[in-house]
Amino acid sequence: RWRRRQPVREVLFFPSRPSCTEELLAEAAGTGAAARPCPCPLPRGDCSLSRLLRRLLSARRSLEICLFAFSSPQLGRAVQLLHRRGVRVRVVTDAQYMGLRGSQIGLLRHAGIQVRHDQENGYMHHKFAIVDRRMLITGSLNWTTQAIQTNRENVLVVEDAEYVKPFLDEFERIWEEYNPIHYRFF
Amino acid sequence: RWRRRQPVREVLFFPSRPSCTEELLAEAAGTGAAARPCPCPLPRGDCSLSRLLRRLLSARRSLEICLFAFSSPQLGRAVQLLHRRGVRVRVVTDAQYMGLRGSQIGLLRHAGIQVRHDQENGYMHHKFAIVDRRMLITGSLNWTTQAIQTNRENVLVVEDAEYVKPFLDEFERIWEEYNPIHYRFF
Repeated sequence: RWRRRQPVREVLFFPSRPSCTEELLAEAAGTGAAARPCPCPLPRGDCSLSRLLRRLLSARRSLEICLFAFSSPQLGRAVQLLHRRGVRVRVVTDAQYMGLRGSQIGLLRHAGIQVRHDQENGYMHHKFAIVDRRMLITGSLNWTTQAIQTNRENVLVVEDAEYVKPFLDEFERIWEEYNPIHYRFF
Repeated sequence: RWRRRQPVREVLFFPSRPSCTEELLAEAAGTGAAARPCPCPLPRGDCSLSRLLRRLLSARRSLEICLFAFSSPQLGRAVQLLHRRGVRVRVVTDAQYMGLRGSQIGLLRHAGIQVRHDQENGYMHHKFAIVDRRMLITGSLNWTTQAIQTNRENVLVVEDAEYVKPFLDEFERIWEEYNPIHYRFF
């Protein structure tokens, strides 16, 4: 019998315990994970990073990302994978951070993903993503290996419209404000 | 007729528009705001900072704070005011940030508020507070004037137990882990 699904309400804490996410990503890419098991010595199994990856990889239509810092190779691969799968990906980021070594932003742009950034004195300090306009992923966590592996961080996964809607509106507001037609060149 | 109050679900975005919070703080301190109106030229009225202050000042019994960076004088005053009012205030913060100029942590300690900090390589990067073990305030916002006035930031105010409980547990875990009896001196 059909029942309305309860909204997802999940809290993830970091640091994430060390764990191999190769199989998860290979499976999502459809490149036959089972055939080529990862030789790395990390334990398999669930961790905050793998849970975050699974939530992201559930995207079917759209993914909005609004991140101060983005350097995690695993999360970068997940986003590129969604883009190749036909998900409409849009990324907003902070101008100061995006040029640093290790940033994923250049790779995302190279893959054809739309990226916009601020031109402000303040930081674009948000750390959220919205999956299929329905699921909000937000918290203190920048998508960096340092944050994932060594910091105390939190991430909320939220489907309640009272939270998702304002973040969608905030994303669209920032997306329009950071439209390159408004960029100033000094 | 008695009805169960709906849980608070609020989203605040920053930068907060400039606004004077003197009257709000003086009223909460019971020092007669109306008698001595603030002479500053800032507009009065609601803003994200005043909303955040009001949520904090609603505390009657306990306030847990877990913050990477805390330098906002207004938020510092609010926390001291709650402490004087008899609210049990506990603060966890990051060791790297707390010694910087402008940090409120020294003032809070001086006022007799319990503060504990990490001794780790990673950052204690959380930015949350829990009011009366019932209301969670969390997001990307560090409690600094720079973040409040110039950054793009978000804060969620949440009363759903699915979110509040894990954060309470995380606070107690960190509070115990950062107990000074475990500090190492090099």
